[in-house]
Amino acid sequence: VCGYPKIGRILRLDSGLTELFEHPVHAEEKVDGYNVRVFRHGEDLIALTRRGYVCPFTTDRLPDLIDTSIFARRPDLVLCMEVAGPENPYNAVAPPYVKEDVAAFVFDIMRIGHSGFLPRAERLALVEKHDLPGVPQYGGFALTETARLYDLIRELDRKGHEGVVLKQDQVETVRAKYVTGRINLSDIRCTSNAVHQLPPEYYTERILRLALYLDETGEKPTDALYRQLGSALLDGILAAIDQYRREGAVTHPHRCRFRDKANAELMVASMKRLLGKNLMQVTRLEQQGDYWLLEFEKVLPKTTGLLRNLLRGGLVYD
Amino acid sequence: VCGYPKIGRILRLDSGLTELFEHPVHAEEKVDGYNVRVFRHGEDLIALTRRGYVCPFTTDRLPDLIDTSIFARRPDLVLCMEVAGPENPYNAVAPPYVKEDVAAFVFDIMRIGHSGFLPRAERLALVEKHDLPGVPQYGGFALTETARLYDLIRELDRKGHEGVVLKQDQVETVRAKYVTGRINLSDIRCTSNAVHQLPPEYYTERILRLALYLDETGEKPTDALYRQLGSALLDGILAAIDQYRREGAVTHPHRCRFRDKANAELMVASMKRLLGKNLMQVTRLEQQGDYWLLEFEKVLPKTTGLLRNLLRGGLVYD
Repeated sequence: VCGYPKIGRILRLDSGLTELFEHPVHAEEKVDGYNVRVFRHGEDLIALTRRGYVCPFTTDRLPDLIDTSIFARRPDLVLCMEVAGPENPYNAVAPPYVKEDVAAFVFDIMRIGHSGFLPRAERLALVEKHDLPGVPQYGGFALTETARLYDLIRELDRKGHEGVVLKQDQVETVRAKYVTGRINLSDIRCTSNAVHQLPPEYYTERILRLALYLDETGEKPTDALYRQLGSALLDGILAAIDQYRREGAVTHPHRCRFRDKANAELMVASMKRLLGKNLMQVTRLEQQGDYWLLEFEKVLPKTTGLLRNLLRGGLVYD
Repeated sequence: VCGYPKIGRILRLDSGLTELFEHPVHAEEKVDGYNVRVFRHGEDLIALTRRGYVCPFTTDRLPDLIDTSIFARRPDLVLCMEVAGPENPYNAVAPPYVKEDVAAFVFDIMRIGHSGFLPRAERLALVEKHDLPGVPQYGGFALTETARLYDLIRELDRKGHEGVVLKQDQVETVRAKYVTGRINLSDIRCTSNAVHQLPPEYYTERILRLALYLDETGEKPTDALYRQLGSALLDGILAAIDQYRREGAVTHPHRCRFRDKANAELMVASMKRLLGKNLMQVTRLEQQGDYWLLEFEKVLPKTTGLLRNLLRGGLVYD
């Protein structure tokens, strides 16, 4: 199973469309979750994370996420999908249209042993035929129709969506991500307690994207927007300081449900192996209805170490 | 002449004082300018920048900045001083107490051929005796007197000062910088148009320092503060985009006065050599009263290149 390639980002629609594309583009929802590739291996279905590890959580929940019967007829396929929602083991954010648990959104299909994707029309036909949850489609846009595309983006911005991926009908051609202005604010708000855990450009890039978005859409920054940005940056750090002082560590809580207890235990074991034994603390694993509920906290080691040094009055050189 | 060593920074006074120091500390104004070392070489007086280059500007203006007769009696001395003010060739910021041109503030004295500084008492006596402009002194503090030190810091914060350097009487012992909360906002505001020119941690570190300052002083972040932070970050980037669109480059303007035209020309030549010929554009060099007025613009090459790529619709990978 080939890796999922990186998709580039444009920060301007006005010039970006004609600069990058030759044919009309289709705008598809960019779902704010984590990327998995799902395929059949012998009798089993397996979900791989972006980095190529088996994800015990997604693998466990596949029957809830998609109609898996497609693999009986087409065992050669690899479904590329985004899994998003408040109850997942990886992300702190969730799109507004997934209110609970998680949901899957198929955005590409590959074949085992082949690099590259099926043509867009073929993917959409398979999604339709097998009743798969495809990513929302926002229609086609000629390269001159930037005004109509802005209207879409402004609407997504208002609704709190992340943005779109622009694709062409042709296989193996360029694609590009384009995100809304406000998703940058919510990304910053959700991660600002992870000081030094994320690279500093995580924040500066998003502030730059927000500025380019305002410039491009002609929106003037309002006092409310300034306040949202300032508070998105500061509140998380202040919360991290508070948490460190109370608990001696800065952590992110996660909560997710499994069908099979063994998979929850596998998830715990694999995260402990990946993150380090002491950096993941299970706070709850118990049966709830048909599911096993797992709650755990991920320790942010760099944030915790930084605050330990700073609050102790340590010297820093810069 | 030895280099001026790096001084570490503490982000907390409460724990930092007792963690670092053994004896009472003296708080001295931390002047927000550029650091030079001034000494006599044959018949000439020379000012070296932090990096060890001759600064034609400071060298030219020495008779305006200090009473240079000290070097006739003490040719062995090296004056370490901060030069600050709105009309300087390096910094965009100036402390509120230097309203025009530049002024010098002596904060340490070394001897030629010796590393390390003269004891604090000896330095203050020399400053007094030779009528030198010393850095403002805010008195001594026992290591338990953090409350009194906070009062000072809050007052400096209100007045827009950068902060203090804490020193002990003993030579060669540890020193530490501590800055006010609001200087972080003004640093960010003054530099946010230099996107990608400064490292991203320039901004994230200052936001972190601001948060630690709020936490330590017990100030709750207000809407006004959030707004100031958001606007400090966004306005500069928007201004850079505007300037790039108008002028095809993002630049910082500088203006400074020289006694001697030859030194102004030397300054231009040396900056062109350091920055690159095309990255410094002289816009004015003319006599004004007793001085030669030099105005020039420094091009920010990374900011300009970044905006060129982004506004053209270029793809970026992150």
